[in-house]
Amino acid sequence: MKRPYNFSAGPAALPQPVLEQAAAEMLDWHGSGMSVMEMSHRGREFGEILDQAEADLRELLAVPAHFKVLFMQGGGLGENAIVPLNLSRGGLVDFVVTGSWSGKSYKEAARYCNPALAASSEASGYTSLPPPATWRLRGGASYVHVCTNETIHGVEFQQLPDLRALGCDAPLVIDCSSHIASRPIDWSRVGLAFAGAQKNIGPAGVTLVIVRDDLLGHALPVCPSAFDYRIVADNRSMYNTPPTYGIYLAGLVFQWLKREGGVAEMERRAIERSTLVYDFIDGSGWYVNRVDRSCRSRMNLPFFLPDDRLNEPFLAGARERGLLQLKGHKSVGGMRASLYNAMPLDGARALVDYMREFAASHG
Amino acid sequence: MKRPYNFSAGPAALPQPVLEQAAAEMLDWHGSGMSVMEMSHRGREFGEILDQAEADLRELLAVPAHFKVLFMQGGGLGENAIVPLNLSRGGLVDFVVTGSWSGKSYKEAARYCNPALAASSEASGYTSLPPPATWRLRGGASYVHVCTNETIHGVEFQQLPDLRALGCDAPLVIDCSSHIASRPIDWSRVGLAFAGAQKNIGPAGVTLVIVRDDLLGHALPVCPSAFDYRIVADNRSMYNTPPTYGIYLAGLVFQWLKREGGVAEMERRAIERSTLVYDFIDGSGWYVNRVDRSCRSRMNLPFFLPDDRLNEPFLAGARERGLLQLKGHKSVGGMRASLYNAMPLDGARALVDYMREFAASHG
Repeated sequence: MKRPYNFSAGPAALPQPVLEQAAAEMLDWHGSGMSVMEMSHRGREFGEILDQAEADLRELLAVPAHFKVLFMQGGGLGENAIVPLNLSRGGLVDFVVTGSWSGKSYKEAARYCNPALAASSEASGYTSLPPPATWRLRGGASYVHVCTNETIHGVEFQQLPDLRALGCDAPLVIDCSSHIASRPIDWSRVGLAFAGAQKNIGPAGVTLVIVRDDLLGHALPVCPSAFDYRIVADNRSMYNTPPTYGIYLAGLVFQWLKREGGVAEMERRAIERSTLVYDFIDGSGWYVNRVDRSCRSRMNLPFFLPDDRLNEPFLAGARERGLLQLKGHKSVGGMRASLYNAMPLDGARALVDYMREFAASHG
Repeated sequence: MKRPYNFSAGPAALPQPVLEQAAAEMLDWHGSGMSVMEMSHRGREFGEILDQAEADLRELLAVPAHFKVLFMQGGGLGENAIVPLNLSRGGLVDFVVTGSWSGKSYKEAARYCNPALAASSEASGYTSLPPPATWRLRGGASYVHVCTNETIHGVEFQQLPDLRALGCDAPLVIDCSSHIASRPIDWSRVGLAFAGAQKNIGPAGVTLVIVRDDLLGHALPVCPSAFDYRIVADNRSMYNTPPTYGIYLAGLVFQWLKREGGVAEMERRAIERSTLVYDFIDGSGWYVNRVDRSCRSRMNLPFFLPDDRLNEPFLAGARERGLLQLKGHKSVGGMRASLYNAMPLDGARALVDYMREFAASHG
């Protein structure tokens, strides 16, 4: 079956073999007589699913033993509160604001701590990244928050900042929701990484938190028990009933990632796909991407047509060709093509072919 | 295909036609070319799914227009914090503790307000319900919290308390996770109802909150934005990315409930199923259920064998006959049969047949 190419920024396309397996196992998982949705989270069967998912994720991302892997609920916006509830100790927190997502994190944190703007790229319309050497980091901050891929603005850190090299001892917190598992993570530079699953690793409703052991156990008294990392970790993500089916799906994605060659191969593909589209845009003289070339996202590619009146015809033609969900975020406008792990190179090629045709007939 | 009968307390059995439809639509929802998991929550397709789910739920439960329906994340344990964060105003809250779940709600609330025990059935081992006329309700409480069906102890309110008749003006909050949609709700007595989906209405990871309009807008400053009922309501459950696939599944369950005859028919079936099993237990002279007959749960039926050494043989024989997940909660011991909406009468019959056989061969 030929499926359309789905460029949604999230919830986003999943690998077809994952969906096929989920459909085949829907009424009976591995001869258990149960759908995964129908299993007690405390039973042997779901225990196996959770253990395997965690083991595969640890292998894929090379997560060191002194980090806990937590499967939580509430998404990235939930974590904007849950991280400061757990890590801020009510003190100073430094934020680097490079787009919509880190901006929301900065704003939400003020409920729980004393946040400050260490750097911002607002003046550039979030089309660049402030160099770490220019960040105004405060001594004694509980942590430094960075969004390493801004889904809406299409800006990505090509390497993680090295806070120690900047003279800062605070742990780095990264919101890597929209590019997790598309490139390796240098854990020596990270204290906590969080990611909503609905872009690169599964369905909406699962939030992944990977946190260094020494950062557990410092939650504020107003932190809900269900969102206290220490409690979640001590109960192996089963203090409250976890989103079992979402974890199962994420686990199927992890297995698919391993079969396809792991994160190194995902990174190679991401570079190939995104380069194809960016090179076409830049060479077209018609479509425009405004992000600085040094920090263009491999995952989320916003672009503009020369005239906004062409947007609807562009989208309608795309749909006809089976190119779905290309509309840009309302705060940015234009188009956005999200090229996550599940997007085959042929999807990027089909997009470029259509863009070329459309420009030729409307240019 | 004959499936086993699954007596899990939650996540729990789902109607087979729902699972079959989900499997059939996994790769392509209604010709969209997308799995529901792959749809942007802001798109037209998911908007239709959400609207239909809410409309069907409102119809099934006869939810009045001055109540909002919210699809949230975090489960019942999450709501134990989220309710007082939203409704307590930091003031007095009265709790009626009738088992494990209301006990946890009472304990968690102390982070946010001044909770007090209005009544407790701990002295009876949570096998009875304290009559509302004996509750010590405080004037000026922000709300009164009751768990209307205790999943672990198998205790159910056969009617909702009428707080006004007790001279109390505070809104009633009900945790109805484990019996929602198995009986009507008298909304004139309720301010807020919440329910984790994973028992009667869908997969784990969706939490339903139905709240009266006048109770919105009073969240404490430390309430995370993603869990502020006012914000969730104003954004039609899409402030953060909702658990889209879980909402879709819940929607399929709602459609199934309507086809089967709605909540009135579910109540009739629940009475029939549970009466069959309770009558057998009481008449057996061998199995024991310790809950007072006036408040036995139609959904969760804990029972004990005369000797705990028979538990493992009982469970092993049950599994052989396709009767799954009958082990009791560790805090209570023994067995527990959960007979939710998706359990056919034949499942209750098969359980009783097996129990009769087992008693005859081990009694």
